[in-house]
Amino acid sequence: MTKTGTTRRWKMIVVKLRAEVARLRRRLQRERAQARPSGAAAPISPLAPARFPRLPPVAGVEFASCAAGVRYSGRDDVMLARLAPGTRIAGVFTRSATRAAPVLDCQDKLARGAAAGPQGAAIIVNSGNANAFTGRAGAASVAAISAAVAGMLSIPESRVFSASTGVIGEPLAHERITARLPDLVSALAPERIEPAARAIMTTDTFAKGAGAEIEIAGVPVRISGIAKGSGMIAPDMATMLVYIFTDATIEAALLQDMLVRLNARSFNCITVDSDTSTSDTLMVAATGCSAAPAITEADSAEARAFEAALGGVMRDLAHQVVRDGEGATKFVELRVSGAQDDADAHKVGMAIANSPLVKTAIAGEDPNWGRIVMAVGKSGAAADRDRLSIRLGDLLLAEKGQRAAQYNEADAAAYMTRQELLIGVDLGLGEGAATIWTCDLTHRYIDINADYRS
Amino acid sequence: MTKTGTTRRWKMIVVKLRAEVARLRRRLQRERAQARPSGAAAPISPLAPARFPRLPPVAGVEFASCAAGVRYSGRDDVMLARLAPGTRIAGVFTRSATRAAPVLDCQDKLARGAAAGPQGAAIIVNSGNANAFTGRAGAASVAAISAAVAGMLSIPESRVFSASTGVIGEPLAHERITARLPDLVSALAPERIEPAARAIMTTDTFAKGAGAEIEIAGVPVRISGIAKGSGMIAPDMATMLVYIFTDATIEAALLQDMLVRLNARSFNCITVDSDTSTSDTLMVAATGCSAAPAITEADSAEARAFEAALGGVMRDLAHQVVRDGEGATKFVELRVSGAQDDADAHKVGMAIANSPLVKTAIAGEDPNWGRIVMAVGKSGAAADRDRLSIRLGDLLLAEKGQRAAQYNEADAAAYMTRQELLIGVDLGLGEGAATIWTCDLTHRYIDINADYRS
Repeated sequence: MTKTGTTRRWKMIVVKLRAEVARLRRRLQRERAQARPSGAAAPISPLAPARFPRLPPVAGVEFASCAAGVRYSGRDDVMLARLAPGTRIAGVFTRSATRAAPVLDCQDKLARGAAAGPQGAAIIVNSGNANAFTGRAGAASVAAISAAVAGMLSIPESRVFSASTGVIGEPLAHERITARLPDLVSALAPERIEPAARAIMTTDTFAKGAGAEIEIAGVPVRISGIAKGSGMIAPDMATMLVYIFTDATIEAALLQDMLVRLNARSFNCITVDSDTSTSDTLMVAATGCSAAPAITEADSAEARAFEAALGGVMRDLAHQVVRDGEGATKFVELRVSGAQDDADAHKVGMAIANSPLVKTAIAGEDPNWGRIVMAVGKSGAAADRDRLSIRLGDLLLAEKGQRAAQYNEADAAAYMTRQELLIGVDLGLGEGAATIWTCDLTHRYIDINADYRS
Repeated sequence: MTKTGTTRRWKMIVVKLRAEVARLRRRLQRERAQARPSGAAAPISPLAPARFPRLPPVAGVEFASCAAGVRYSGRDDVMLARLAPGTRIAGVFTRSATRAAPVLDCQDKLARGAAAGPQGAAIIVNSGNANAFTGRAGAASVAAISAAVAGMLSIPESRVFSASTGVIGEPLAHERITARLPDLVSALAPERIEPAARAIMTTDTFAKGAGAEIEIAGVPVRISGIAKGSGMIAPDMATMLVYIFTDATIEAALLQDMLVRLNARSFNCITVDSDTSTSDTLMVAATGCSAAPAITEADSAEARAFEAALGGVMRDLAHQVVRDGEGATKFVELRVSGAQDDADAHKVGMAIANSPLVKTAIAGEDPNWGRIVMAVGKSGAAADRDRLSIRLGDLLLAEKGQRAAQYNEADAAAYMTRQELLIGVDLGLGEGAATIWTCDLTHRYIDINADYRS
């Protein structure tokens, strides 16, 4: 055999082997990408809205955000909102017994009357570190941030409301935030709400916003809100970080009553993973900068119109949090009816929505309604097996304690392939009802949470 | 260059490339195996004991099992246990509001005094179908099976206790079971407890058994138990299917008291996925066939010795259920102390054990104790952030409301790679304590439950 012949043969072998190595590397990469999102560029939730909505500009609010390097690099992680003098504030917060330092601070300030006042106010939020379970140092960080913001904006410290979201248990390097305050203040502008919504994201895959515009006595009033939340979502009294701004003029106490009432039917009715955050915060700031007359009576047409619009914005934001549930591929609405009372209906809905067996069946597009029966049974609510009925959209699956006569597995399986599911459960006992929103439980939830330090 | 020199160089390149191809193929295979179990042959849990234990033969009990084709093919799916005349029965059952037909039947029979009697008794269990949410047809199936067993064994129907485990909501083809009764009865033999344990498995990856032998007044008394359970494990009053046999002679009421007490510290302290089954059943049958004297006084040394042995068997079986938790790769013991009372400690332990964020962090070997703080906070138990301390084995992670001064991430991360983890949580409030056992939440749980129709 000639030398060139031999070389050609070796070359061919090497070329083939190199191609095989390249092929295997590609495949490994592809399969890993499918199994695990790369930390940096998490894919956007398939349930995300097409784009961030165009929000109505709310008179009396300005936003700024910046990259302070609290934990993330290459992205904004602090947002500041400046609120006009006289702004009324309402808020509800997590009921966790291990609340984060800024949550305790906000609650304390509101309890001491900071909801109303002639001065301006501010909201400052960082992502990447929750400043939770950080002891006295955590409270000191909140105080340092509040004092710095108050000084820069010439407002009282008691009117500075802060929040932190991210890793629990690590000290917050608050000086990284205060060092950027001059830049933040000089960047304040009314239209910068979308970058603000981006700055407060953690495992979120899209920025969340919702708005409404109504007229009060013929004068326009605007509501614009932003939210973050994706995992550790099972709000108890409030959820995640949600900030809603309006230029309406409204009494602080009336606004607080509305917020509590609306929260019970929006954020308190969603769950991603049954885990309640240490930082859940929902605040509404009413600047009073619209020319519309003040809303002072709970029973007035104006109050009802405003409450309906605010409720719509809150529900929209709550749905967006579910749509960005960690690893979610299905958006599920659970309508529970016929319960002994509304509290029981809520219990049943949450038991179904939090059941890992129900959530994995939904992920697998399996119309496994037996698991819904199981969840009703364990919920602790009054239930009678023989009065229970279960529907998927318009399909009746089960009634009178057994599979429905017209049950057709193929129809049910076809329904389950939809991206948005409606599950109806009627307990057949009374008038109690509740609607709960949740998502499925997929491999990606495990990928995100076996890696991400949150 | 010489021909041999060239050949040697080519050879070296080819050898390296071939090694790389082999390495990539192995890695691809390994990662695929980790990501997805092949549906047919579920791998045995890495936490499984080496083998089914050698159980002491209990006088007065015989077992048989067979393949009736209820749902599975190619494996036994029915087990029958015949109990000697005079056998005392105690039982605790799921508190689910949607209990399965055989659970309701067992509870009814025990309430009517079937726990004690001069006649024999029987336990019959099928896997593959839970006979739950099957309406009147479900109750009729239980009655048909009871009547057939009673007729074959010449015992009263009231002394036949049945259970079914598997899919919820599908009618049980009980005639497949009754058709095999003659074969089952003729196969009854005292030593066939291991095949019986296998016949009641569903998603279980190993058969579960535990036994003890003690002496009462110098005479040997034996206890042997079997269990099944892997998913839908968050027992509320009892768990899954557990049958324990003893030849002790003991009053039925005394046995029932012991069972309730021991259950509260064994099966009621485990959770795999927070989902409570519709079929949970725990029964103890005391045949009285040992020559040992009867246990009649709760305060006697004999009662205490028997209770300790029975408790050991129950805890062993409870741990085996956790070790076979769907997709489990870690066995976790949670020791909660310093709670206001035991109930609060139990609440805190369960909140941690059921938190998907804690369970995925354990799967990812991430010492993410912030999630434990979160779970304590959401548990509903009295807790004071500043008195809470958290340990991993001997490592102190957090105390006094913040990260411990001596915290070392590398040590904690190294501890997390163990297969058996001990997590200690002290609330610093009182004397309440509880120990809870659980497992991690992995991709395999989702694989199993997005496919398996249970």
